Formats: sequence, C-alpha cells, structure tokens
Amino acid sequence: MPEFFNVLPPDEARQLLLSKLSKTLPSESVASEEALGRITAVSIQSPQALPAFRRSTMDGFAVRAKDTFGASESLPAFLQVVGEVPMGQAANVSIDTGQAAIVHTGGMIPDSADAVVQIEHTQTVGGETAVPYEIEILKAVAVGQNVLQVGEDVAQTDEVLPAGHLIRPQDIGGLLALGITAVTVSQKPRVGILATGDEVIPPEQMTGPGQIRDINSYTVAGLVRQAGGIPVLGGIIQDDFNALQQAAAALLTQTDMLVMSAGSSVSVRDMTVEVIEGLGKPGVLLHGVATRPGKPTIVGVIDNKPVIGLPGNPVSAMVQFDMFGTPAIYQLQGINQMPQRGRAWARLTQNIASESGREDYVPARLEEGVDGLMATPVFGKSNLIYTLVNADGLIKVPLNKGGLYANDLVEVRLF
Amino acid sequence: MPEFFNVLPPDEARQLLLSKLSKTLPSESVASEEALGRITAVSIQSPQALPAFRRSTMDGFAVRAKDTFGASESLPAFLQVVGEVPMGQAANVSIDTGQAAIVHTGGMIPDSADAVVQIEHTQTVGGETAVPYEIEILKAVAVGQNVLQVGEDVAQTDEVLPAGHLIRPQDIGGLLALGITAVTVSQKPRVGILATGDEVIPPEQMTGPGQIRDINSYTVAGLVRQAGGIPVLGGIIQDDFNALQQAAAALLTQTDMLVMSAGSSVSVRDMTVEVIEGLGKPGVLLHGVATRPGKPTIVGVIDNKPVIGLPGNPVSAMVQFDMFGTPAIYQLQGINQMPQRGRAWARLTQNIASESGREDYVPARLEEGVDGLMATPVFGKSNLIYTLVNADGLIKVPLNKGGLYANDLVEVRLF
Repeated sequence: MPEFFNVLPPDEARQLLLSKLSKTLPSESVASEEALGRITAVSIQSPQALPAFRRSTMDGFAVRAKDTFGASESLPAFLQVVGEVPMGQAANVSIDTGQAAIVHTGGMIPDSADAVVQIEHTQTVGGETAVPYEIEILKAVAVGQNVLQVGEDVAQTDEVLPAGHLIRPQDIGGLLALGITAVTVSQKPRVGILATGDEVIPPEQMTGPGQIRDINSYTVAGLVRQAGGIPVLGGIIQDDFNALQQAAAALLTQTDMLVMSAGSSVSVRDMTVEVIEGLGKPGVLLHGVATRPGKPTIVGVIDNKPVIGLPGNPVSAMVQFDMFGTPAIYQLQGINQMPQRGRAWARLTQNIASESGREDYVPARLEEGVDGLMATPVFGKSNLIYTLVNADGLIKVPLNKGGLYANDLVEVRLF
Repeated sequence: MPEFFNVLPPDEARQLLLSKLSKTLPSESVASEEALGRITAVSIQSPQALPAFRRSTMDGFAVRAKDTFGASESLPAFLQVVGEVPMGQAANVSIDTGQAAIVHTGGMIPDSADAVVQIEHTQTVGGETAVPYEIEILKAVAVGQNVLQVGEDVAQTDEVLPAGHLIRPQDIGGLLALGITAVTVSQKPRVGILATGDEVIPPEQMTGPGQIRDINSYTVAGLVRQAGGIPVLGGIIQDDFNALQQAAAALLTQTDMLVMSAGSSVSVRDMTVEVIEGLGKPGVLLHGVATRPGKPTIVGVIDNKPVIGLPGNPVSAMVQFDMFGTPAIYQLQGINQMPQRGRAWARLTQNIASESGREDYVPARLEEGVDGLMATPVFGKSNLIYTLVNADGLIKVPLNKGGLYANDLVEVRLF
C-alpha cells in the first residue's frame, strides 16, 4: 500500500478519497415538495414548454404592434377595445386591425395579437369603458413587447435539472411548474458513528475522575445532518481491538459510511488503522494530513464505503470531518459539483503564526467594525470545544504561507 | 399611516418590519442532540468547570517541571517511572521529586505533577519498561506545559450560550460536554402560505389555456424550512376579496406569520393591501421596496405576526421572501444576530445595467476560471423561474450604483 503513512496535503488527500468512491447509492422517488437538499439521481427532461401559452407581462391591452407604429403622446393611435381576456382562461376574444383586448399581468394573449401596450401608456377616450370603446395609444410597441413567448422559460424536452444536482427551493418550484410532482434522488447516506476511549462516557452520565463526556458523536451527527446524511450512533467502545473491530464491522454492514472518533494517543491511532485494515478492501488510503488541527486523521475506503478515523480532540474532529466526511456524503449521492461553502472576507485583527507546508484552520469570531467585517482568532488548544462554540468560522492559512498578518484581508469559512 | 405607499430602501424597510416584532415566540425544551438550527430562548450557564480535572495533551510522562530544568539531549535529566495513569480513571499514582508517571493524551495528571514531557523527548535507559524503571528527559518543560488546566475550556458558572443563539453542531457538543442534555429554545415559527390567482392551479393538475401551476407556495415553503420555520400551506385562493380575507384570517389564527403570493396586476395588489389592513393592527407598514425584482412587495404586521404580500412573479417572490421573510422567521425566535449568509466573490463576465436609487438582484452562475471564480449573470424576466434554477446565487447591485462592469469583483449571495 504505497499511500500508507503518507502525509498528504488536504486537497490531494480529499481527491484521493473521492476518487475511490465510484458507486453512487441506490435511488428512490420522493415527492418534489419534500426533495429539499436531496440530489437528483437522473437527468430530468421537461415534459412541456413553459409557459405553455403566450402571456402578458403587464396590465394593458393586447394589440397588433403595427397598429401602434408612430404613436406618441402628441400623436396617439386610436384603437377599439373589443373584449377582455379573463385570468386563467383561454383568450377567446379575437382582434382585428385597429382593435385591442384588455389583458392582465400573467394572462393569455389572443392569437391575433402580437404585443401588449401597458395601461400607463394608454388613455380612454371620453371616459367610456363599456365594450366596445375607444382608447388612445400614447407609445408604440414592437412585435413581442411585454409578451412572454411559449417556451421562453423552458422549451419542451429541455433538460430541467442534470443528474447530481442538489435540490434548492427554486428547483422545487421549477419542477412543480412543469407538473413534475415526484423526483428520483439518491438515497440519503447512512453514516455510522462510533466513539472510542476508556475515558469517554455518555453525556447524560456524571463524570468521575479522569472521565469526559462524548462530544464528537454529536458534533459529527450534526455535520452529517447538515450534509444531508442520516447519522446512526453506534455508542462508545472501549479501547480494545476486538471490541472496536466487532462494533465497526457490525455498524458498517448497516450503513454507507463509518466514522470513528478515536483517542489521540499513538497506540489508539495505530489500533484504528488496524481495525480499518481488517474490515476489507482497499482499506486505509492515508494516515495523516498536512493540516493543523487534525494531522493524525485516518482515511480509508471499504467496498465503496468511506471509513474515517477522526482525532479525538473535538476541534480536530470537526475540522477533519468537514474536510473529508462532508464531501464524501455528497459524493455517495453522486453530486456533480460540491456546494460552494459560505465564506466571508474580513480584516484580521492580529497576527496568526503558521508553518509553510501545512494548512492551518484557526477558529475566528466575526464582528462588524467601522471599516467592515473584522475577524479575531479564537486561539485555544484543539482539545477545547469552546474555541469552536465561540467562533463564527475558520480562517484558512494556506499551505505555502508561514502565517497571516494583522490587517490582512482573510477568507473566513463560515460554520 | 405615514409609511403607507412609501417606497423604502430595502435595509430601512427590513429594519422597519423587524422593529415592529417585539415579542419572541414561546419557548420549549428539546433534547440537545435534536437542537440543530434552533435558537436558545434563555442564557445557558455552565454547571461545572470543563475540563473537570487536569488533563494531559500529550502521550508522555507527568513530572515536576523543576526536575527537568536544564535537561537537554546532551545533558539529560534522569527520572524514575513509578506508575501509570490509566485512561478514564483517577490519577492515584503519586510522584515525588525525581519521579514520573506514564500518562496518555487526555488522561488525568497526578496532583503531585505540574507538567508533562512528551514521549518523543524521552528515552528509556537500557530498554527497561517494568515499573519502576529509569528514563532520560531530553528536553526541559515549564510548569503547566502540555497540561489542560481545570476550567480552561469553560469555567464554572460561565455563560455557555447567550439567549438568541442559533445552535450549530459544535454548540450541541459544547452543551453535552457539560452534561446539558436538554435546552430551552424558541418554538419554530409556523408560517402560513397562501397563493392567489384565478389562473393558478395545483401542481399535480394539467394546465388548461391561460392556467399556470402554483410555484410560489413551494419555493417559499423551502425557504421557510431553510430558515428553521414550519410551512403551513393554505392552498390557492381565487382573486376575490371575501375569499382571500376569510382564508387569510383563518390561516393567521393557526400560524405565527402569513405570506400571500399575489398576482402582479395592480387590482390584485390593491386587494392584498386591503385584506392585510382588514386583518388587524398595525396593518400595512410599507407598500413598495426600492429593489428589482420585487418593487411591489407589501409588508405588514398584525398583532406581532409578520404578514408579507409577495409579488406573483417567482423570481420576485423568492428575492423578496429572502429579504423580509427569512429575517422575520429568525426575529420571531429572538435571534441575537442574523446569521451571516454565504457569499462568494467573483469576477463579473459582462456588464450589468441598473439604476441609481434602486437595489438590483441579478441571478448569476458561478464557474471556476483560470483566474478564480467567475460570475455570469443569468438574465431573464422575473416571471421565469428557470433564471433562478440556472443560477448559483444573486449579485447585488448597490442602491447608489448605476450598474456593474465586466471584470468587476462582485459579491454573490449564494442560494
């Protein structure tokens, strides 16, 4: 295994993981209105043109454009209003040369009309409004003006959404506009989560000396939910090879991905590597990433299922899950483009030291200053969950930089 | 009503709405692990110090720091290892001057020790590892080095989370680390949604001439969910004052906020204003916002419940709901700071025309170019839902700008 024990730069490490996940999860059909955050499993074609009929974009009068040519306030054109197109109904009124029909915004245009004059550019003659009556056109319109053409939004057989598309509110609207009330999406990945450590106890228990409560199972579960997965908590396993191996193997059969939050001691990390190797093939892809926090992260794949060994420190665990776990959840659903993550640009309020050749993630708090957004690093050991609680995002110190300086404009990756 | 019919700049308009929402929704207790995306209703104090005991941040040896002073590779200090602190247990081993105890990352430090020497800076003498045995210390440590102090993460009685805090994965971890397994949060706002229009039919029906399917109820429902609210769909109401008045009044009694997506014709807009005025006090706050799309938005408040009349065009409806509806949902839950929204900075690929005095939102597609992210405007009438489906976010053209130029670095508000 040539990649074993390599400490890779994070982007390369992530690419390596994603490249080994070739199969997308099975698909299922869900109601379009319940599909928010799901990922399309197939390309969706339009069954019809949208709009299906020519619609007015204004309140006004459907006309033949050539009847308005040259019209102006000083030299209006005169047209006879012969009817009205009611909303939601066919435009049964027919107009001839010199005639017009009342139309409303969104209403259908009569076949015999080719433009709409908006009401503000007209005037009734003598206040008469019983059909037929005469109006003055104060401004000429061109053919097609103020008219939505058939298929202007979507042409028939257009691709509506490609496969691998993350469904947003407007996509639901777009599907329903075409009468597509169900959509084929990838199943949500089930993500097994194990905590390990003789010192770790469930949150509802009182801690004794030397004991701490499980944090990582729950922060990871939150991140899994945010990425559209289903967390499956496997509980807390003692630092024992057989116990961990059994628990990992059992949880992996029920899930599509496995996350183990191991202790940070060297012996426990070695045990996690051995457990992953014992689960199947290809096994561990890399052991170590050139980042801080989170260098001792273990990344593997077993039969198309990502298996991630996170460091036990809660800050490392969150940063590393975000780096590998979140993209893996999207990849298992066949996403065609990773979602852009939320960022803010801010002025740094103090220096940050780093080392070239390592990508650092420093928690930061954002505040609106007189000159715009200010980012203040929240320093603290990576064992301290409250450095993340007190932060709004992470500042990335790039691989090739030895640090950042106060007053630098920095990118903050928002939580 | 002095504000009536004023067309306000969007920031002022939003402030006006939020200033009229003084009451937060009632609170409820939820399990901390289910609290993702909820907003704390009270300030939460820590019941204990975290960590509750001194912990090692390294694998190595707990020592008295002064026993290591001056130690170096060429002149090591010699200490006797007298025991080991097992993970998850009290540090019952006591060390005297010249002694050390094995500790693991995250383990408890004996009372009599004040620092930890990491294992990489030690060497066993003669390969002996049965207690007691001798080690060389190759590097001095200072008092407190490699030790997490009691309360270093959170001190007892510290405020853990303020009231009005949006709960993220790390906040759940922070609560559970302290044994806080339930949290008092504001109830989720129930948001009533009505579509109006004689031309609008449910998405599952076939359209006849002049008919269109309801889009806005579903895009708004998606946005409501994203902001942490519960959408309550009230169906499609005909363009009839009494029908709309009755439906709006009935839905408002069951919900905390009401959204009406009305047609865009002038008569329908006037009817929406009248309906809102008839629901109670204070009624309509503003009718018109200096934005495109979405100028004819109607914003009101009835008895601390926001009531928003959205334009019928789907693009306008989404942009305007995002401008007023989303902040209102957070405000009803008593949020102390609106969440930073995701943004990206990108180079514009072509000019965008606008008008000074109006804030424009132009849908844009993002692509990674050779020089970084590129934003291409997706032009289209605001009736066209697919301009949003084909976009990754919105470019904002500020109030005081007449447009943006190709190659400008622009902020894209991500969907």
